[in-house]
Amino acid sequence: MTLFDRIEIEAMDARDPLRGLRDAFVLAPDEVYLDGNSLGVPTHAAQAELLRAARDEWGGDLIRSWNKAGWFDLPVELGDRIGRLIGAAPGQVVVSDTTSVNIYKALHAAMALRPGRRTILAEGGSFPTDLYIAEGVVSTLPGARLRLEGVDGPAIEQMLDGDVAAVLVNHVNYKTGALRDMAALTARIHAAGALAIWDLCHSAGALPVELDAAGADFAVGCTYKYLNGGPGSPAFVYAAQRHLGQARQPLSGWWGHARPFAFETGYEGDPGIRRFQCGTQPILSMRALQGALAIWDGVDMAALRAKSLALTDLFIQQVEARCAGLGLRLESPRDGEQRGSQVAFGHDHAWQVMQALIAGGVIGDFRAPATLRFGFAPLYLRHMDVLRAAETLEQVLKSESWRDPRFAARSAVT
Amino acid sequence: MTLFDRIEIEAMDARDPLRGLRDAFVLAPDEVYLDGNSLGVPTHAAQAELLRAARDEWGGDLIRSWNKAGWFDLPVELGDRIGRLIGAAPGQVVVSDTTSVNIYKALHAAMALRPGRRTILAEGGSFPTDLYIAEGVVSTLPGARLRLEGVDGPAIEQMLDGDVAAVLVNHVNYKTGALRDMAALTARIHAAGALAIWDLCHSAGALPVELDAAGADFAVGCTYKYLNGGPGSPAFVYAAQRHLGQARQPLSGWWGHARPFAFETGYEGDPGIRRFQCGTQPILSMRALQGALAIWDGVDMAALRAKSLALTDLFIQQVEARCAGLGLRLESPRDGEQRGSQVAFGHDHAWQVMQALIAGGVIGDFRAPATLRFGFAPLYLRHMDVLRAAETLEQVLKSESWRDPRFAARSAVT
Repeated sequence: MTLFDRIEIEAMDARDPLRGLRDAFVLAPDEVYLDGNSLGVPTHAAQAELLRAARDEWGGDLIRSWNKAGWFDLPVELGDRIGRLIGAAPGQVVVSDTTSVNIYKALHAAMALRPGRRTILAEGGSFPTDLYIAEGVVSTLPGARLRLEGVDGPAIEQMLDGDVAAVLVNHVNYKTGALRDMAALTARIHAAGALAIWDLCHSAGALPVELDAAGADFAVGCTYKYLNGGPGSPAFVYAAQRHLGQARQPLSGWWGHARPFAFETGYEGDPGIRRFQCGTQPILSMRALQGALAIWDGVDMAALRAKSLALTDLFIQQVEARCAGLGLRLESPRDGEQRGSQVAFGHDHAWQVMQALIAGGVIGDFRAPATLRFGFAPLYLRHMDVLRAAETLEQVLKSESWRDPRFAARSAVT
Repeated sequence: MTLFDRIEIEAMDARDPLRGLRDAFVLAPDEVYLDGNSLGVPTHAAQAELLRAARDEWGGDLIRSWNKAGWFDLPVELGDRIGRLIGAAPGQVVVSDTTSVNIYKALHAAMALRPGRRTILAEGGSFPTDLYIAEGVVSTLPGARLRLEGVDGPAIEQMLDGDVAAVLVNHVNYKTGALRDMAALTARIHAAGALAIWDLCHSAGALPVELDAAGADFAVGCTYKYLNGGPGSPAFVYAAQRHLGQARQPLSGWWGHARPFAFETGYEGDPGIRRFQCGTQPILSMRALQGALAIWDGVDMAALRAKSLALTDLFIQQVEARCAGLGLRLESPRDGEQRGSQVAFGHDHAWQVMQALIAGGVIGDFRAPATLRFGFAPLYLRHMDVLRAAETLEQVLKSESWRDPRFAARSAVT
């Protein structure tokens, strides 16, 4: 690493069109936070909105806030705001429940739209909750079965047959960061007569997503990663306009009713996206998310993607140059076109290496069994942060500081 | 109303053993809040915990708070704390998702434990989401059917036959406040070979509940009414110890897995109550609830019940004495033994009357089609508040101030 490189990297920050957004975030000055793909950083606006909700709305107007502060409509209001980031026209996205619960709704809706077909396809390499929920759906549908890419067949494209009703697929792989071509795969799925459900947990807010243009049928995603909504903030679900009204899902709670306050005995689903709601939502968490989403007004998604690729390319280049022969294996696609906004390296002692990195002020995470995972949130990271992360990783590996016994103990949550 | 009565009522407040708890709550000095059965009032502790969670945990330790602040174990920790209020020994209650979603889990679990039986019984007068969710469960179980008390038969007790697998019943009716005898009805349900699922939304925190002693099988409830957890704070679900390990529910997300961080491809449910979890929970809302539950340490539930009955008896007595002939009809049981902590009066112009009451600083709510509903939260209400509410209602009805056109417009959320 020459001084010249450092000057070049500082120049990248100086000409970064998104550089002004960093000040909106609550960041520790002495840390490099590369875990925004697990839990995003709060903005000052998100914290301020949460405080207002707790003090003036809950603590002041109390029950009247359902109307006065617009609490009841937050799921559709925030849904439309997220819709703008994922290429969904208004009225197709609602914020509600968790990603897991929303996968359950979407899979059931898709299966009901393809009567006679009994197979769900998913990915063996998926974040596991997608598979666990698909198992749960299968358990409620006689004759249904779940088949997994990489386990029961080589690739989704080659597993599409006349029995496939729904394909549940991740836009960006949670571990490797591998990015799917949404339009191309959706077209293949439709050509086979099946419906496509996209999991956007690792792409919403990380790169441009075009659900409507790709012809996606359903989608789900979380809001606490690149959308910075706060720990466990409510998830979203998308249903394409053409399926609204006819799509049915069995979590038919009162918030999905056509007339929730008429207190009728029988269920009649709302004709729009509200049918994908179920019960009363956690408003404090929802209000923090509302504050968090404000930063996206005016963000150019093409500029976001360009910066994301610049950050991840720089990280791969710096790490490989500095750490050659030190046991790291790139687990993410090298080609930026096939990569989300994260980079994974395998290492035989990944757990300890990550603990040593964290002790050195570089926060990434570990994924079992042996992966170091680094997320690059373009709204608040600088190119110089990437340099510091690579330098710290080099230092940890060269000094073997990760062998310190204090880095061996596993915590409950990884 | 004589001066002597007022002096007597002031004396009731002076000797109230719970009177010291009121100061823990954030209350407007000029209002009487009788809507704690819809949205409970925040405690200063709940707001403080929320602020700490937003600033120091999310904004400071970020991802590390999952371990350091104990976020991941909040559902079971808070579950056990609620368990102490509802007569459940540790390890049987978990805080997760919404009441609606938890009803779905409990009904599925109960149906799977009674193979061959296909009927769910519920109440025609139930809060509707219970019925809507039961419809949703029925839609996923071939041959299953839902029968309603008051619609398909006269009373739950007389509808129990050999096909009934599960009975979903409210401990306290959301509208009338009618209280069921949990032990007696559970025994009848068990004698018929069925399982009992109790909805505690209007009893948890309002009166003593004894799930274990009554032999209940499952229970659900919300935390934003008498438990004051905040708007839409996460709900709870109870499964009796004898059902743990064998009870299955199809919302099999990763938080219910025996080893959630092993990222295994196949689902294996946790052997304990964690199996009733699904996905990542809204931690900010959960932390406010944690702060809210602190006030219950040391609260004598018998004293709580005694005060609740004193408040509701006083309200009925005062309203009936002051408002005779003014069109009110008591819709709650007159006998305190059969009543929860709320009082309902019917009135032909209930909507307008409630708006006029609210304008007069007495906050209750309206329930379609023609009910004035008043909740009495014993932790923060005084007997003098009851007097003022009755006086205000008398004034609104005698002056007919409710006829003011500004009280006619309906809001979206009632």
